[in-house]
This record gives sequence, C-alpha cells and structure tokens, in this order.
Amino acid sequence: MGERAIRIGLIGFGTIGTGVIKLLQRQRASIRDTLGVGLELVRIADIDTRRDRGVKLARGVLVGDARVILDDPSIDIVIELMGGTGLARRFMLEAIAAGKDVVTANKALLAHHGDEVFRAVERAGVEIGFEASVGGGIPIIRTLKESLCGDRHQAISGIVNGTCNYILSRMSEEGGEFAAVLKRAQADGLAEADPSFDVDGIDAAHKLALLIQLAFRVRVPFTQIAVEGIRHVSQADIAFAREFGYAIKSMAVAKRCGDRIEASVRPTMVPRRHALASVNGALNAIAVRGEALGDTLYVGAGAGMMPTATAVVADLMDVARNRVHGSRGRVAPLGYPLRLQTRALTVPPDDRLGEYYLRFLLVDRPGGLGRIASILGVHDVSIAAVIQREREHGRAVPVVIRTHQTREQALRLAVRAIDRLAVVRGRSTVIRIEESIG
Amino acid sequence: MGERAIRIGLIGFGTIGTGVIKLLQRQRASIRDTLGVGLELVRIADIDTRRDRGVKLARGVLVGDARVILDDPSIDIVIELMGGTGLARRFMLEAIAAGKDVVTANKALLAHHGDEVFRAVERAGVEIGFEASVGGGIPIIRTLKESLCGDRHQAISGIVNGTCNYILSRMSEEGGEFAAVLKRAQADGLAEADPSFDVDGIDAAHKLALLIQLAFRVRVPFTQIAVEGIRHVSQADIAFAREFGYAIKSMAVAKRCGDRIEASVRPTMVPRRHALASVNGALNAIAVRGEALGDTLYVGAGAGMMPTATAVVADLMDVARNRVHGSRGRVAPLGYPLRLQTRALTVPPDDRLGEYYLRFLLVDRPGGLGRIASILGVHDVSIAAVIQREREHGRAVPVVIRTHQTREQALRLAVRAIDRLAVVRGRSTVIRIEESIG
Repeated sequence: MGERAIRIGLIGFGTIGTGVIKLLQRQRASIRDTLGVGLELVRIADIDTRRDRGVKLARGVLVGDARVILDDPSIDIVIELMGGTGLARRFMLEAIAAGKDVVTANKALLAHHGDEVFRAVERAGVEIGFEASVGGGIPIIRTLKESLCGDRHQAISGIVNGTCNYILSRMSEEGGEFAAVLKRAQADGLAEADPSFDVDGIDAAHKLALLIQLAFRVRVPFTQIAVEGIRHVSQADIAFAREFGYAIKSMAVAKRCGDRIEASVRPTMVPRRHALASVNGALNAIAVRGEALGDTLYVGAGAGMMPTATAVVADLMDVARNRVHGSRGRVAPLGYPLRLQTRALTVPPDDRLGEYYLRFLLVDRPGGLGRIASILGVHDVSIAAVIQREREHGRAVPVVIRTHQTREQALRLAVRAIDRLAVVRGRSTVIRIEESIG
Repeated sequence: MGERAIRIGLIGFGTIGTGVIKLLQRQRASIRDTLGVGLELVRIADIDTRRDRGVKLARGVLVGDARVILDDPSIDIVIELMGGTGLARRFMLEAIAAGKDVVTANKALLAHHGDEVFRAVERAGVEIGFEASVGGGIPIIRTLKESLCGDRHQAISGIVNGTCNYILSRMSEEGGEFAAVLKRAQADGLAEADPSFDVDGIDAAHKLALLIQLAFRVRVPFTQIAVEGIRHVSQADIAFAREFGYAIKSMAVAKRCGDRIEASVRPTMVPRRHALASVNGALNAIAVRGEALGDTLYVGAGAGMMPTATAVVADLMDVARNRVHGSRGRVAPLGYPLRLQTRALTVPPDDRLGEYYLRFLLVDRPGGLGRIASILGVHDVSIAAVIQREREHGRAVPVVIRTHQTREQALRLAVRAIDRLAVVRGRSTVIRIEESIG
C-alpha cells in the first residue's frame, strides 16, 4: 500500500494517446486495486499543446518538449505514440538507455528498427510493450509470447489492415469499384487522405514482419515480403470469387516451407465457410497454425481510439506488475532471447506453390478458350474449374479459371504468354487462393 | 545456466497427460532456451501403471501412488489431470499447502471449489495455472487475466462444449435428429458413452462459472446459472432458424444487466453472418464484449490431446518464469486479488429480457394462428415475424414465430396458455435469439 505510484510519461497526444488517458482515468481505481499500485500519467508531450482533445488534465501535465519526459529520472515508463521512424526511434532508444520501460504502438518503427530497439531493451534490462502495434485491441502479441509459447508454429496469417478490410467488405456487400468505395471510406474517416500506406499493403507488411519474429523466431528482411495492394481488385473478381465459394480479403500470410519462410501481403480468396470470411468492416483477425494446437483465430477491432488504448493499458499493467515484483525482463521482448533468432531464408517468389484464380477478357472468337487452356497446359498449370459466360455480340467476355496447385513462375510465364494473345484484351487478373488458411 | 531444472510431477496419466509428455519431449530444447531453465517431468502418478500410452518414460518415473509426488519436496510443480472433485481437490490443496505450484485442467473442481482453491493459492503465495480448463487450447484465461485487464466487460459468451457443437453442426450440415447424430458422435469418439455431462449443459456451465469470475470479478452461485441442454433441438428448428438467418448453437452467455448478472447455457440462435455461426465441429469460441475494446472473439480446438497440452505447457512455462525471476504471485489466480471479488446478484429467470423463437404444432383448423396471436398479445409478447407453411390435409403443421424483446415470465405464461389450446399438439419449442452476441 505504501508503494509509490508508477509514473508514466506519454509522448504523442493524438487519438490513441487520448484514449489511453480516458481509459486510465475511467479505470483508475480498478487498475490500482488489481496491481496494488496506481498508474499515474504525470507528463504528456506533444508539439500541439493547445488543441482541446476533450480530456481534463492537471495544470502543467501537457508540455511541448519530449525532453521534459526523457530527462525526468522519476518517470518509470514512457509511452511512445508519436509515430514515424526518425525522432520516435531516438526517443525510444534514449528512454531505454535511461532505464525506463517503454510502451509503443509503432509498427513501422519496430518493422524497420526492431532489431536495434529489442537489443537495447535486452541490454538495459528494461521492458518493452508493443501489443498495440498489431491488431489494435486484439491481444495477439502477448498470446504469441506467453500462451502459444510451448508450440511450434507452421503458419500465421491475418487481416491486419482495417482500411483494406473495410473497403473490400463494402465492395463485397454494396457493390461499387475500388476508387468510389475508397472515397466513401475517406469521407467516413476510415481511410487516410493519402491511403497508399494502407491500400498498397505497406502497413500490413510492417505488422507481418513483427508477427513472423514472434511466431517463427526468425527475421525476414522487410524487402523479402511480397507486397501487393488492393487497388486492382474489381467487382468482377468479387462476384466470381463468390461463385467459387470465396471472399476476397487482403491477407498477410507467412508460413514455413521446409526450412524457408514464405511471406506475402496480397488480395487473397478465402473460403466463405471459414470464419475469416465473416470478419468484415474495420475488424482485424489473426489466425495461427501450430503443430500441436492446430488453428486458432483471434478477431477484434484492429484500430480505433478506445480499442487500441486497451492494448496500451494492458502493457502498462504488465510492466507495472514486473516493477512491483522485481521481475523486469521476465519475458524477453519477443518472448525468447534474441540470440535464438536467426535470419530466415525466404522462398523465392518464383518457387512459391499455390492455387490461383485467373481472369482474362476474351474477344468473342472461336477457339479463344482453347488457346488459353493449351498455353496453361504447356506451362504445366493444371485447371481445376472454368467459368465462361454466354457471349454478348462482339463484346469481350470474361473467362475465369481456378488452377490446381502450381508454381508461381510457371503461372507467371503462362499468363504473360496469354496476355500476348490477340484474342485477349488488357492485362489479366491473378489472385491467390488460400483453401486451408488458419 | 547453472539454474537447476524445474521439477514437475503429473497426477493423472490419461489423454491430456500423454499429450503434455509428448509436447514437453518434442519441445524440450526450445522450452529450455526460451526460459533459461529446463522443465523436467520427474514423476507421473496413475492408478494404471501398465497401459502403454505410446510415450517413452525413464524407469521409475511412473508410479501408482500420488503420495510419491505430493511428499517429494524436490518437486516444484504438480499438474493435476486426474479429474473429479473429490481426491483431486484434496491433492490440489495438499500440493498448495506444501508450497508447490499447481496446474490443472479441472473445470468441475474449480467451478465447485474454486473459492477454496484460489484462497489457498493466495495464502500460500504459490501459482495456479488453469488455462486448459476452458476452451482447450484457446488461451482465453491468460487473455482475460493479463490482456483485457484494463477494460470493464459487459458480456462474455461462448461455444465452450465441443460435443454439443459437434452434434449441432452435424445436424445442421447433414441432417439427422439428435439421437442419431449423438450415436454417430459416440462412434467417432466425440461424445462420451454417458453424454449427459456434455449435452445437458453441465460442462459448459462449469466453464461459464469460471469465465464470469475472470471477466466480471464476481461469483455467481453455480445453481443460479440457467442450464438447458440440446436434446430437444430438432431438424425443424434448425431449418426454420436458417430461414430466419440464424444458426443454432449451444451458447454459454453471461452479461451485466444493471448491477446484476444474467448467466445461462442454452441452445441459442445466432446470426449466420456472425463469425460465431462459422465455428463448427468440435471447435470452441469465446466472445468478450468490453466497454472500451468492444467485441473480440477467440476460436480454436476446445479439446483434444495436443491442443489441450499446449495450454498446460504454457502454464508450466508461466510458472517457471516466475520461479526464475522470483515473482511468484505476480498475477493473482483470477487476475485480481480475491478480496475484490463480490457475490453477484443474478437476474431472476422471469425478469430476463430477450427475443425468442417459438414453434407450435397447429392442427389444421381455421383461426388457430389467430388464437395463438391473441394469447401472445394478451401477455404483451410482440410478434416480429411468422412462418406458417401450407397445410397438409388434416395433419398438424408447424407455426413459427419470432418475437420482439419480451420478458421471459410473460413468454412462459403465454406459451403455457397456448400449449393448452385444443388446436395445439404437444409441447411448444422456445429458443432464445441473441441478435448482437459478442
């Protein structure tokens, strides 16, 4: 009871920071009773000290300079919610070197500089919490570090970008092509003014880079994650996918293939009967496949002020518990000592194996489909199913093909040859099918 | 490195115990590297020391008497997998009193004697792990204790009995009435010879009793959980549910209603678009609704040798970490100090509010439906939708009604009156609808 409160400094007073303050205020008594010690937010630093965020702060708490937090030896934990990989990295490393524990939601920072940050954490014997960096409020980080830690994982896959999932869900439920739905998402505040970070798959790849380290105990260079956005997904593809029994989701997938790792972010067809296909709107979901455990799935709000705040506060409580019990460093940053981590070999893109959905626009001329089929045959791409609609007078008609398992290189060469045919209009669409995901 | 291995004794060498041994053997090096200390299973006690379980054990490890484990001061952790609430309770309390940490999968024991066991754990300053007691390999216990701990929960609900879910899923996918499908489940080893513990909802209620303590920080007397099994669910109900857009699942549900808790296990209609409706076969799922976090959902194998073993091993690793770092008692048995727990008032069954599905068998006589409707009206039960099939000459036809929100008492009185009508055959079916579950 005589225990002094844990003193916290927050750098970056944006949406999530505001949520953290609200949650700490609302749950103040419950948290103190749970931990046996209070969590006190003593300083907040942000370059904007004027804007009203709708939370009450004591006089002097909000400052314009992060140094006030970093240089205060009485502050135990620093929450970094400013984002970016420049200043945020420097502040994090400084806080760690000063013996402070850190909590962050910054996946970009950890994807690009995680190695440096985690090493600094181990060296300094402090704690780092980053539950909020993947899946918002879904507690996937702690689950991988502490609950699934006795198993060996074969695959981890997920819907980890809410903007992509929102856009694809609306396209699927209400129709409309990508550009129009993106505009509506922007109007609803569910997509950024510059959406490329989300819709081009970068954000999901950052998260996948972290999940890979947690699940497989290896590092995959960020550049070796194959990344494909959702801009080219069309209503035609969504409709055909439905006919084949699939939904199109932007999936981040990593799996063991022998002693290599295959990692990609791309639009993917998943079976409609699978629970992942019901994960719609801005929801996120992560599926883990363990050798012993089999498949588990974790679903929840992948972003948002209060959901993400719950992850930050859980991290604060975890750190506080270790401070109270003198057990900082009890669980390593990634759940295992960093020296156990190796750099993974990845499967070269051409060697990947998978089933694919192909869509061609075929000019109505006899023998067109036959020529496509024979090119696929020459390249050893085996056809599982075909849909060709009735022809309309002289117009190009879509031909859709589902392949059996095939090497990506063979597929690429075949599609390139098909796209050169005079009977084929424009470029063809290729979408990966994951039949037995998570 | 000089750290001595953590010494473990296992009481109860059945299916899960065998899985634990296999997993500890298979992951031996990885676990030791992760923890910085090895986990050594030094003794196994079971009354059957002869049967071959297909695992290799060193000479002398398997003994017939649990005393050998309980009386051995060199054993750090006791895993209790014998089941039951008699001897298992005594052994647990003895191990705890002797300062050993304990890990168990015994939900019946914790549902009936949890209070005594948890108090003993707190008093002795030891650890208890019971991740395997709810949801098999789904890490819901640690999630509630350590990841969702900064939030206030409004509801927790789940598919927590694999046998019920398997039977209802098969009935839904392949047809067949309860009795026939149960027989097939028994033949497949997915239902016990005496299935009542599962199909009558008792097992799910045990798990719900634990989830309530974890999520709401209250105790609900086991007798105040309304329990209804799945024996009476028929193909007719499954088909009508589908027509209304629902799947029938055996759901364990607890929610806050003002300062009271409503808790029940019963067949429930959930929207087919909800991810819970896709949780089929022997899978389990738990949905948590938090004030700040909103809905999260956790899906995975609810039973089975290896999935359940992962939960036991995760608990062993957790305990080992606290032993290495001198932080036993770091997280209280339920995630919060027991003194914070109160005894909850429950909502009296008659006062419960909900939407319902009703099915009556109506003799083909004019005005029958009208009389049903008017009885419902008299009791203030408002009708949301009706399905009445075309009549077949002289045979009784089903009439199905979906109600708006109604008090359970009013509904009960109305249904009793309707069942007394001369035009109604047999007893009517009443199934709760949960529109916005988890």
